[in-house]
Amino acid sequence: MSYEPKPGTPVQELDTPALILDLDKFQRNVDKMARFFANKPTVLRPHSKTHKCPQIAQRQLAAGAVGITCAKVSEASVMAQAGIRSILIANEIVGPAKIERLTELARQATMYVAVDDPNNIRALSVACHNKGVQLGVLIEVDIGMKRCGVQAGPVVIDLARQIADAPGLTFSGILAYEGHLVMVQDPEERARRVRHDIQPLNDVVESLEKHGLPAKIVSGGGTGTYDISGTCPPMTEIEAGSYVFMDTTYLKIRPEFESSLTLLVTVISRPTPERVIVDAGMKSITHEFGLPQPVDVPGAALRSLSEEHGKIELADPAAISVPAGSKMRVIPSHCCTTVNLHDKMYVCQQDVLVDIWPIAARGCVQ
Amino acid sequence: MSYEPKPGTPVQELDTPALILDLDKFQRNVDKMARFFANKPTVLRPHSKTHKCPQIAQRQLAAGAVGITCAKVSEASVMAQAGIRSILIANEIVGPAKIERLTELARQATMYVAVDDPNNIRALSVACHNKGVQLGVLIEVDIGMKRCGVQAGPVVIDLARQIADAPGLTFSGILAYEGHLVMVQDPEERARRVRHDIQPLNDVVESLEKHGLPAKIVSGGGTGTYDISGTCPPMTEIEAGSYVFMDTTYLKIRPEFESSLTLLVTVISRPTPERVIVDAGMKSITHEFGLPQPVDVPGAALRSLSEEHGKIELADPAAISVPAGSKMRVIPSHCCTTVNLHDKMYVCQQDVLVDIWPIAARGCVQ
Repeated sequence: MSYEPKPGTPVQELDTPALILDLDKFQRNVDKMARFFANKPTVLRPHSKTHKCPQIAQRQLAAGAVGITCAKVSEASVMAQAGIRSILIANEIVGPAKIERLTELARQATMYVAVDDPNNIRALSVACHNKGVQLGVLIEVDIGMKRCGVQAGPVVIDLARQIADAPGLTFSGILAYEGHLVMVQDPEERARRVRHDIQPLNDVVESLEKHGLPAKIVSGGGTGTYDISGTCPPMTEIEAGSYVFMDTTYLKIRPEFESSLTLLVTVISRPTPERVIVDAGMKSITHEFGLPQPVDVPGAALRSLSEEHGKIELADPAAISVPAGSKMRVIPSHCCTTVNLHDKMYVCQQDVLVDIWPIAARGCVQ
Repeated sequence: MSYEPKPGTPVQELDTPALILDLDKFQRNVDKMARFFANKPTVLRPHSKTHKCPQIAQRQLAAGAVGITCAKVSEASVMAQAGIRSILIANEIVGPAKIERLTELARQATMYVAVDDPNNIRALSVACHNKGVQLGVLIEVDIGMKRCGVQAGPVVIDLARQIADAPGLTFSGILAYEGHLVMVQDPEERARRVRHDIQPLNDVVESLEKHGLPAKIVSGGGTGTYDISGTCPPMTEIEAGSYVFMDTTYLKIRPEFESSLTLLVTVISRPTPERVIVDAGMKSITHEFGLPQPVDVPGAALRSLSEEHGKIELADPAAISVPAGSKMRVIPSHCCTTVNLHDKMYVCQQDVLVDIWPIAARGCVQ
């Protein structure tokens, strides 16, 4: 009884809730970002946590990306399986089970991983050496996000030296993500603060160079900051991911990209003239960045989500007919976590289904 | 490279993030709820949206539940496939694709569905009649949640008459969920308001009876209200679900059940003495009801979640050692949406793995 609509099916006939990818808008986003990096010294290594979909990763590579970024070993495993040959895990990988899987991946692809701790470096080295593989290692430097990472300073040189001396490991550079700034609303303030917080990395990179430990990669950046970090020394790689889909949060600050991803929902109940209940709630669309935005229906605003219901209010019920059974689209407020709730996306062109792409790394949190 | 630890593995050796079910605590919760209903006129039809796991549904039935409740047709399909023979979909099912699947399910199990609209009743009747199946239909009555449903009053009689006259449909009763009250903190206020809001249903049921349309089922209730609604006429069935796992939200108001479900996480970074970063974020545990609660580590409080990181703060870092690589458990604040992020749960007894249960209906939102 698995639901598999055929190519050629009109979007409006798809069962719901259904994640709809507008292929043309998506491809324009991919191409626009690729053009930005086409003649820059920095390169694009897009974060696949946004889409978790090998078909999308391959399109990003075809447009010029140097590889992909992942958050987890299990995600990287799906991408390596799909033939992707250069993967940066922008995260500390800790614990024997994960390190074992990481060394297996290093046989299939050029793998990079982040570290911020000498014990972790030792554990990675032992595992890689035993397996006879070589792993690229980046030191995570905290430039203001206050999450993982060491502070810019002499400790970076010490760790780089330890990595360079460790069998099975290659010192590859720095990971420094300005995640605390990617959503600063004012573009000038955002640019000023990103440049300010990245600045100390120049000294770090220069000092590494002096110690004979050149940072081949300095990785960071997101959709909110790609054009700032992407033109700001010493950054060499940008990890932006959300630009392929966009969401209401990023649309506010990045109007140059298009909304390519929506959730198609069905009206299941019309209890009052103003109230429209749709068949999608928190299990189909996330709301940690605010309530998602209905499109197609003028004056419709989402007021709350329960697990499997969305409550929409109509500003002017007399002006529009929204009977039970009608469908509408909703733009997520956070594309990355919304995609992670779904097993597949319905790929459409001009509102007709052309393909179904599995979200193959959905739920890969280990 | 799929991760499948063997029974006998100590919990502390499981890869993370991992959803851990303490089988003994879980079974005590199941048994305690079953005992409550053992000598009552009301029966238990637990909501499977909480666990989405046939193994758990079967244990609830073995303890005396009369069937299960689902939110979606695709969920019901997984449960019917697992051999469950009485299923109430406590939701309006709208649209030809879903109605077609619902009629197929009615061949495999005794199916009940909710309605609040004459057109939907007609569509269900045509489909069931064409398929030669019989579907039990409940009228959803809004008793204060302001979601789906009609108001208590003459419209219920009209709809019941329409259902009773419709080929393929059987009028089975009323669905009335007091979801707006299940988390009222003060037990006396909760009890008073639940009884007050359920009260109008007595007139509805009496009037139905007079019209020769007896309501065999009057279904509602949650873990927050099972002992109120479960002893309050005219309710006949209670849909409580969360009691099997519990979460920080329900533990505050339902101390008679035990926390049986936790997320095992690994510390991946210790950037400062106070700050502990673990490998679980919004893609592993939800936070719409507040931030989850670490256990095992005294003075540890979760401060924020990003997609794949949790930021924990230690009240007294000198008092306790929490190195990178150590593991701890976190109690979800909302078990239902957290379970929906995972493909399986690791079933443990006395901190040793005894089984792995697939969350077979995870992601079943259609």
